[in-house]
Amino acid sequence: MRKGELTRTAILDQAVQVASRVGFAGLSIGRLADTVEMSKSGLFAHFQSKEQLQLQVLDRARRSFVDVVVRPALTAQRGEVRVRALLEGWLAWSGGFLDGGCIFVAAAAELDDQPGELRDALVRSERDWLELLATVAGTAIGEGEFRPDLDTEQFAYEVHGVMLAHHHASRLLHDVRAGERSRRAFDSLVRAARLPGSSRPSPA
Amino acid sequence: MRKGELTRTAILDQAVQVASRVGFAGLSIGRLADTVEMSKSGLFAHFQSKEQLQLQVLDRARRSFVDVVVRPALTAQRGEVRVRALLEGWLAWSGGFLDGGCIFVAAAAELDDQPGELRDALVRSERDWLELLATVAGTAIGEGEFRPDLDTEQFAYEVHGVMLAHHHASRLLHDVRAGERSRRAFDSLVRAARLPGSSRPSPA
Repeated sequence: MRKGELTRTAILDQAVQVASRVGFAGLSIGRLADTVEMSKSGLFAHFQSKEQLQLQVLDRARRSFVDVVVRPALTAQRGEVRVRALLEGWLAWSGGFLDGGCIFVAAAAELDDQPGELRDALVRSERDWLELLATVAGTAIGEGEFRPDLDTEQFAYEVHGVMLAHHHASRLLHDVRAGERSRRAFDSLVRAARLPGSSRPSPA
Repeated sequence: MRKGELTRTAILDQAVQVASRVGFAGLSIGRLADTVEMSKSGLFAHFQSKEQLQLQVLDRARRSFVDVVVRPALTAQRGEVRVRALLEGWLAWSGGFLDGGCIFVAAAAELDDQPGELRDALVRSERDWLELLATVAGTAIGEGEFRPDLDTEQFAYEVHGVMLAHHHASRLLHDVRAGERSRRAFDSLVRAARLPGSSRPSPA
């Protein structure tokens, strides 16, 4: 990467942290200038407008999510092991990667009533995530671990619910048992998805 | 109620609608004055500060939630029927009662990183809701419908996840199947909670 690109990425990484705490509406160029200790005019040269900044912050968050959660999980063994890797990756992402928890959960609640480019970009990104969960559940059918008649979209919907419950319990309620509860909920979903008689696969 | 109380409640009902769409941060006395077509000084006389307004809006939302969801469900037959009444009441509340969907879901994401009185009040209210879900699941144990060893807090956690997934799917993704998916997810949880051999109770 050229130096300009490196600077831009470093700024965006800080902006993702800010947005995870205060939301996209709170992410002004002025506020970000204070955080990264740059002039507002310098930041304007990079991002032109608050709207452009917000779109690039969401895009940067999406790329980080792919690096932290998606790509490692896709190197895991196909099937249930890979489904579990997505959950564990998400828990690590939501619990430790950003100051304010999963930025997508926060953005969903913030942007759902705000039509526009930013909302559209978030919707695409969330659909990608749910489709990935469903597709990976499909690999567990392919491997003979999950029932062939499993509705993988429904499975993805329910796993996503477990993640949202975790965000709520850990971020808002500071429930120290959130991780344990989420894994138990996930285990129930996986048990119900398994082909009768198949046992839990051991990780390769 | 005296006239002053009626006016105050009418203002708060409008303020709950506004906050459900734009969040608590967006709920300024100026903005609310435009919505209810009153002067800012008139509103200041009622609420003194933005912080007091926010606290009273949350309290008003909590009372509405009790009226719309909790109280009707508590008149339903004890047990599984009552658990289901809580879900259906919540779906009606989230889907139709407020312009911006469930105000508590939005507030949870908005306030989780903002220490203060408003966050504390929301945490109390959310704990009440989860405890109510668990308590009502307990009535289904008492009626011999759910397993005696059911972890009712875990059950409440998972039902809450279904509700959060519904909010995400319906409000952000405009998924027309959100209601159907949520009821299927809920049915799975109830099936797993039932005492083996017991069948679904018919509503009284």
